[in-house]
Order: sequence, then structure tokens, then C-alpha cells
Amino acid sequence: MRIEAVDFFYLAMPEVTTDADGSQDALLVRVAAGGHVGWGECEAAPLPSIAAFVCPMSHGACRPVSASVLGARLDRPEDIAAISARVAHDSMDLLQAAHTLSGIEMALWDLLGRHRDQPVWQMLGYRRSEPKLPYASLLFADTAQETLKRARKARAAGFLAAKFGWGPIGTGSVAQDADQFAAAREGMGADAHVMVDVGQIFAEDVEAAAARLPALAAANAYWLEEPFSGHAYEAYAALAARSPDVGIAGGEAAHNVAMARHLMDFGKVRFVQIDCGRIGGIGPAHAVAQLAVARGVTYVNHTFTTHLALSASLQPYAGLADHRICEYPADPRPLAVAVAANPLRRAGDGTIRAPEAPGLGIEVATRALAPYLVDVEIRVGSRVIYATPPLDG
Amino acid sequence: MRIEAVDFFYLAMPEVTTDADGSQDALLVRVAAGGHVGWGECEAAPLPSIAAFVCPMSHGACRPVSASVLGARLDRPEDIAAISARVAHDSMDLLQAAHTLSGIEMALWDLLGRHRDQPVWQMLGYRRSEPKLPYASLLFADTAQETLKRARKARAAGFLAAKFGWGPIGTGSVAQDADQFAAAREGMGADAHVMVDVGQIFAEDVEAAAARLPALAAANAYWLEEPFSGHAYEAYAALAARSPDVGIAGGEAAHNVAMARHLMDFGKVRFVQIDCGRIGGIGPAHAVAQLAVARGVTYVNHTFTTHLALSASLQPYAGLADHRICEYPADPRPLAVAVAANPLRRAGDGTIRAPEAPGLGIEVATRALAPYLVDVEIRVGSRVIYATPPLDG
Repeated sequence: MRIEAVDFFYLAMPEVTTDADGSQDALLVRVAAGGHVGWGECEAAPLPSIAAFVCPMSHGACRPVSASVLGARLDRPEDIAAISARVAHDSMDLLQAAHTLSGIEMALWDLLGRHRDQPVWQMLGYRRSEPKLPYASLLFADTAQETLKRARKARAAGFLAAKFGWGPIGTGSVAQDADQFAAAREGMGADAHVMVDVGQIFAEDVEAAAARLPALAAANAYWLEEPFSGHAYEAYAALAARSPDVGIAGGEAAHNVAMARHLMDFGKVRFVQIDCGRIGGIGPAHAVAQLAVARGVTYVNHTFTTHLALSASLQPYAGLADHRICEYPADPRPLAVAVAANPLRRAGDGTIRAPEAPGLGIEVATRALAPYLVDVEIRVGSRVIYATPPLDG
Repeated sequence: MRIEAVDFFYLAMPEVTTDADGSQDALLVRVAAGGHVGWGECEAAPLPSIAAFVCPMSHGACRPVSASVLGARLDRPEDIAAISARVAHDSMDLLQAAHTLSGIEMALWDLLGRHRDQPVWQMLGYRRSEPKLPYASLLFADTAQETLKRARKARAAGFLAAKFGWGPIGTGSVAQDADQFAAAREGMGADAHVMVDVGQIFAEDVEAAAARLPALAAANAYWLEEPFSGHAYEAYAALAARSPDVGIAGGEAAHNVAMARHLMDFGKVRFVQIDCGRIGGIGPAHAVAQLAVARGVTYVNHTFTTHLALSASLQPYAGLADHRICEYPADPRPLAVAVAANPLRRAGDGTIRAPEAPGLGIEVATRALAPYLVDVEIRVGSRVIYATPPLDG
């Protein structure tokens, strides 16, 4: 097969707020080859990601992503890796390229799996899709009292694990943050996994992060996520050395395998969290999962958007029974809910699995997406290089 | 002052080829505040970089760069750092943001310098602008014979240092590469600095790079640049340990201070090469220069485009007399030549200096740029969010 077409669909809620809620818009990618269609999703700013696909070439090491994808061979998983390697080299000076490629790469796996009648995890070499314990991914409320309510609601919805993120953490006092952590624990109950995500709020300030460790330990937090900016490996390692109880987690910002490896080797994280929609897709994420296994680090997906992204994010570690916990978008905006016609439901024991169906196993509900489709046109000179394609095209 | 306007100008040669020549297009940025105007340049893919400024917000951690810049206070250098910190946090999920910010940040320094009647290097705390030895930045030809001619031409043009890059190096045999290195040395003469840049051709393959070390040592190469991809710190360190004679250089891909620091600390480079048009501008580059001094690493600019970019790239280490060598675009395309009305000429002794004039000291020749201006329009819904502004506006 040759890759015949790559189409980008920018979806957005009618109103987008400054909430740290990544489900307010989405960039879906549809790839066509050999009579098949595959779908993927970039966890990325839609417009710059589209631009990185369609833009004119700047020079040999700053080519648009399209130059490495359109017309390329697609018969085997190795072909996907070859496309990724070509993007890494020929688009090395195009920073956004990794985010653009991520959704395409997922779609290539989906398409190849449908062509071969195999789930992606099987093409990655796994023999079965192991059950994962989904944690509800939630945001801290403005007050501890409100966070307590959110935690109780998640527990009542059957979640045995929940992560609370962002909100006011790190912007007020240590005591205020301690109240929030305690509220999350109280609402979820003593037997649940409770995780805390502070969204890089401390930049590289180890002392500020360390000041929260006693309260996190008191709340029996399973991990502290993203205390620092994605590249601050030294700060990560310094905090890890001071936190015997609470593991440090990070990695969602990784836009290549090396960044994730460095966060493990130099940053000493106990959990590495990979977003397939940013790291370049499923292949690089699978490489990170193998590195994590070799290091005794726990691999976790990072997914805050749709069940298309969720299925993709489960594939790289679907067969790793010991890497059991998984992020699950518990309360996404309606557009993110609308994307998958067949979302990944929790089984009776509360677990989920990567689908047995071919490819990513997700049917994209194109008709339900029409209300969210953003109409975009990019013109360079007299040439329209991008216009939103029809969803049913 | 408040930042009133930020305008992007995408310039391109009529024909852009796959040559590794970054001067085939340019993205200039003009910032207006308090009756002053400042100019900067992103060393980046123009269209995705523009999109990262004007795109709609995706969520609180994926805001367009414009959200942190327009209307922001600009009275002191600290205000520029505050804007950069805000972009790092509020646009943390927008990968292209660092490249977009780079040109803006330069323009902010230029504008502030013109307002204060001070050169940028003085605002950075340097007492004088030290002479730098410019090296001609050239590409390897397809054959060693042709490379020899290019080297002789550079020497005849008065260059006492030259770097040869890309071309066929790493794609053929070790012996063929050795011929190329020898030709470069022969053409430049025994007393010149000769550097070699292989443009990440070896990805993470230490053995393939190491196989070229004897020939590089025989040609008395001053450094070997970018043998590996920008994040391959382990490979850099492994090669550095095997190369006592030829220093390893890298860093142009750094899009934040941490990446450059890691290349020094984990990658053990002897030369750190920073492009102000990618790392986020002059402030982060200056921070890297200070880290380099503390580590005994030599700071070098990375500049392959215009003299606006060249002036910006000299500022971060203008006052460091011991960090003497500097990259100089010796043979750029006409559009890159046209940008600066007052380019940085070499003095009688062959050296150049960052200008004494206020700001970056470069007058942008807006009228000469009209033939290269690319007409772009980006529409989202019914709103045109970007249209190429008039150059004389």
C-alpha cells in the first residue's frame, strides 16, 4: 500500500476556557491507503499542527511533515518506523513536527491493523491485552470542600483510583495544598489510589515542591506528577531523592523517546507517563515502555481527551500485566465524548483493556462531530494549502 | 510601555530547494511599543510559527503565544524574562511556541535598547563588545574536488576559519568522508580553523561517528558538530570520551536553556552552539553563555541566515573575550542579504563585533524585502486571524 491521503479535522467546543482541560478541542487525523482508513489524534494545538503538515518547505532539514508521509509505503510496522525516522531527520528544524506526526502515526497503526485484521497491541508483539485499572483524571476544585465532593463523586462512580490535578495547588500556602490533598483522600476512601498532578507549577524550584511532600505522604498519595517543567531532570532527581514515600511521575511533555529516557535515567522518576499524541505516536511510546520495564519504572499512559486517544495510549503497554494503572478521562467535554462510537467501558471489576478489534478498535462517529468541526482555510500566495475537509469524505 | 503590536513577515526565495541552507526563507518579527519599534527573527518554519502566535486557545496550558505578549509591560529586561516565563507555562503544550517566541524576544530587546539608547549587550551587563573571529559557514560540495574550491574561495575572501557542513558526509564510505575533510583543510590552509558539521546524520550511532574521528584528527578539525540528534546526550558523551583531539560541538536544536545545559552536563560537548532564533531569544541564550563559562565550555552562536539574526546571536556572549569564534553566514541567499541595511562588516583584522548602536543596531531594509514577502491568510470560522501585514505599516 501507499499512503494516499492524510486529512486533519480540527474540532472545538463552542467556548474554550483557561481550564487545564485538554478535552476542549481535538485534532483528529484520517489516513487512507489501499482501500482502508485509519484514525489518530494529536494531543496538540490544532492550527500549528496542521500548519506543520501543509507548510511550504524552508530547506532540506525543515520540510513539512507531509513530505515524509504522503506516498510512503505502508505494508509492515517497519514502514511506520521508517516514516517516523524520515520525519525526525527531514523535519528536524520544525519543532511542531512531533506533535503533528503523533496523530498520523496512530492512524497508520490503526489502518495497518484493519488491513491485517489484527489489534495494534498484537502487531507490537504482545500476546494478550491485560486488564488495566483506570484512574479518574480530575481537576482540583478551587476549594478543598469542592474537591472533596469531586472525589466522592468519582468513588461513587466506581473508580478505585483518581488523580487530582492543577487548580490552586502551588499558588497558595503549603497548608492550603495539604487541605486539598486530604480532601482528595477523604473523598476517595482509604483503600483507593490517589494521585496528585501539579502541572509544572514549580518550574525548577525543588524546595517549593519538597515543602508539599509531608502533606502528600500524609494523604498517602501514590505519586506526585509533573512538579517541574518537562526538561528539568536535575530538579526531578533532587526531589526523588527526598521523597522515599511518594513516587515522582512525569513524562507527558516528552516529544521523543530520548526525553522520556532522560526523565527516567537523569530525572529518576518512578512512573513515566507517555502521551501517544505528543511523543510521535505508538511506536515511540512502545519503545519507552520497553525501556521502563528494563529500568523497573512503571509505564503509565497520559490521556485526557477521547477514547480514540485512550485506545492508542493503551496499546504500547497493553501486554504488560505489571504496569496496571491507566489514566482514564472521567469527565471530558461533550466533543471528546462524541468522537468514539464504541468507547472503552469499564468491566464489572472496574478494569478496562485495549480492544480485541483490529487496529485501534475504535469507530469514529463522524456524523456526531459535525457540530464541533472548525472551518479553517490557509492560503499561501494564490494557493489554498489547507481547507477543512468534509467529515464524511 | 505596553506591547501594542506584533507583526510577522514571512519572506521566501522564489524557489526553495532541499539544500541544507536555512537562508532560503525567513520569518521576521516587528514589535511596537511606546512609539518604538524592534525587530527579531525566528529561525523556524514560518507558517507553523505564525500559527502558534495567532491560533485559538486549546486550554489553559495551550494558549497562543500572543496571549502572553500582547499588552504586556515592557520597561526593563526583567519584563522580557517575565513574558518568557509566562509563555513557558501558559503555552507548555504548544511545542512550536519556543520558536515563535524567539523572534519576538529578540525584538523586545531591540525595542528596549532603542528606548534606552543602549546596545543589548550592555543591558545584559557586558562592559564592551569584544572582537569575534567569524568563520565562514559553508556546505560540503558533492565532491572533494568541489569542496576544495569552496575552501580556497573562502580563504581568498579573507576567512581564517571555515565550517563545512552536511552534503554527502555520513552517507558514503569513511574514506570518501576523509577525502572531503582533507580537501577542506587543504583549501583553507594549515593555519586556519576548520570545522565539520554533519547535521545529525548518525542519529544515535556512536560507532558510525567514531569511524570518522581519525580522518577528522588528521585534518586537524577544530570540532565535529551535531554528529547525533539533538537529544542524544548519551551518544554525545560516548563520542566525546573517544575523541581527545577533536572537540564535539552541538546545541543548535536547543529550544530551552535546560536542553543546552544537558548537552554540556550529560553530553560533554566542548562547544555549545546556540541559535537565538530557536532557544527562546537572547535572554535564554545569555543564560546558556553563563553556564558555559562556569563549565569551561566554549559558547558559539549558531547563525545561518541574516545579519539581524547575527547581531542578535552575538549579544549573549558579546562581552566574553575568551569565547572568540563566531558563525558568520558567508554565502546566504539574496533575501537574507537584503534584510539588513547595515550588515556587520569584518574589520581589517578579519574580526566582527556586536554593534555599538542601540538595540541590535541593525536597520531592517523593509523596502528591499517586498519582492520576497509571502502573502498568507489564515481564516478560522468567519474570522481572518492572520493576513500578511504591509512591510511599511
